[in-house]
Amino acid sequence: MTYCVGMLLNAGMVLLSDTRTHAGLDHVSTYRKMFTFEEPGERVVAIMTAGSLSVTQAVIARLRDGIDAAEGAARPSIMQAETMLQVAEIVGNTLSDAAGDISARMNAMSQNAAATVLVAGQRRGGAMRMFLVYPEGNFIEATSDTPFLQLGEHKYGKPILDRVVNMDTSLVDAQKAVLLSMDSTLRSNLSVGMPLDLVVIEADQMKVARQRRIEPDDPAFHRMRAAWSEVLYRGFDEIRL
Amino acid sequence: MTYCVGMLLNAGMVLLSDTRTHAGLDHVSTYRKMFTFEEPGERVVAIMTAGSLSVTQAVIARLRDGIDAAEGAARPSIMQAETMLQVAEIVGNTLSDAAGDISARMNAMSQNAAATVLVAGQRRGGAMRMFLVYPEGNFIEATSDTPFLQLGEHKYGKPILDRVVNMDTSLVDAQKAVLLSMDSTLRSNLSVGMPLDLVVIEADQMKVARQRRIEPDDPAFHRMRAAWSEVLYRGFDEIRL
Repeated sequence: MTYCVGMLLNAGMVLLSDTRTHAGLDHVSTYRKMFTFEEPGERVVAIMTAGSLSVTQAVIARLRDGIDAAEGAARPSIMQAETMLQVAEIVGNTLSDAAGDISARMNAMSQNAAATVLVAGQRRGGAMRMFLVYPEGNFIEATSDTPFLQLGEHKYGKPILDRVVNMDTSLVDAQKAVLLSMDSTLRSNLSVGMPLDLVVIEADQMKVARQRRIEPDDPAFHRMRAAWSEVLYRGFDEIRL
Repeated sequence: MTYCVGMLLNAGMVLLSDTRTHAGLDHVSTYRKMFTFEEPGERVVAIMTAGSLSVTQAVIARLRDGIDAAEGAARPSIMQAETMLQVAEIVGNTLSDAAGDISARMNAMSQNAAATVLVAGQRRGGAMRMFLVYPEGNFIEATSDTPFLQLGEHKYGKPILDRVVNMDTSLVDAQKAVLLSMDSTLRSNLSVGMPLDLVVIEADQMKVARQRRIEPDDPAFHRMRAAWSEVLYRGFDEIRL
């Protein structure tokens, strides 16, 4: 599995993904699930993927091919699309096509290949938007009522988000929240693993403000995890039944 | 769905269940999922159920019938069985039989009825034991490496248990832990609902030490939830990125 979480806030967007993939219980490996595309000042798009690696790699490759193709291509690329809604549609179509192509071959072996994608971005003149694209290519959007979207193993890390996140959360607090949400997931589920990829996009900048790979021995993340454990242990002791 | 959690500790056992059942999204109702059987000083058995209500009710009814039946019945009841392992086997067989009977009728409508059961108890002269019985009737047992077992929506409430619970946890801390684990689940999942049923069994007493129904307006549980929220909010503020 996978755990990815994206937040759409007034101040900007924060995205965090793990990197563990596995086929069954062995063949465990590390693959990037976070991809960014930018034309600074004009457009920024961040994509996180979950699901069958052959599908998600095909999706990213096809989206890149679309960007590299000549301007006169039949379909606009995600860097040309006029709105973020159109970007989500392109991603949805690409996902549905790639999954269909691969599944057609796998059906012969009664297997299935599916993936889910989170797309976030902003183009100049438009609003920040964030979409969760389902395997069939349809999608839902983050709103002020639901300012975060999750892919994969979403349950372990949801309680902390349900408590601390709303549209007015700062980008610093949002980074803390996604990292603590990931911390709970890492502790409770073996299929989610380090390193992590963190991306921060500030509102109306149309570029990636911060992109960081957090390695297993990252001292800041270690400190934060230890401090959070301390908060929970101390708090647990203080609580009266 | 359902959330039930049971802990097997050196000091005793703690069990907590919710009471929400639903068919689809409407037809939401409250049903007890916690059942205790005791012959004080001789034997105590606590059972929690999750899954199809028609199956779990049939299981409890059949177990009770077994207890009420004359001593000379062909199969021993859970109050006669010589070991807790045998109790788990009786529950497993009863579950598998009941699910089979009901599913046989439902198959005609391409539906399926399944349930899962947690059985905990102690008989005089034996050790405390706790089993999770799968729909097919087979089961696994809690051990010192894994001192808690969960039924139903187990992911939201697992991170706190992973952190604070081990075999040496006191019964007071264990009650706090299961209630906080339930708190996270209640907040994040609509299919789990109040009131709650809490049972505490002390080691080697062969009786229920404490059994409590926690209603939605229970002041102690409210205080505890509020205090835990305060711990999390304050801790979240203190943590540095």
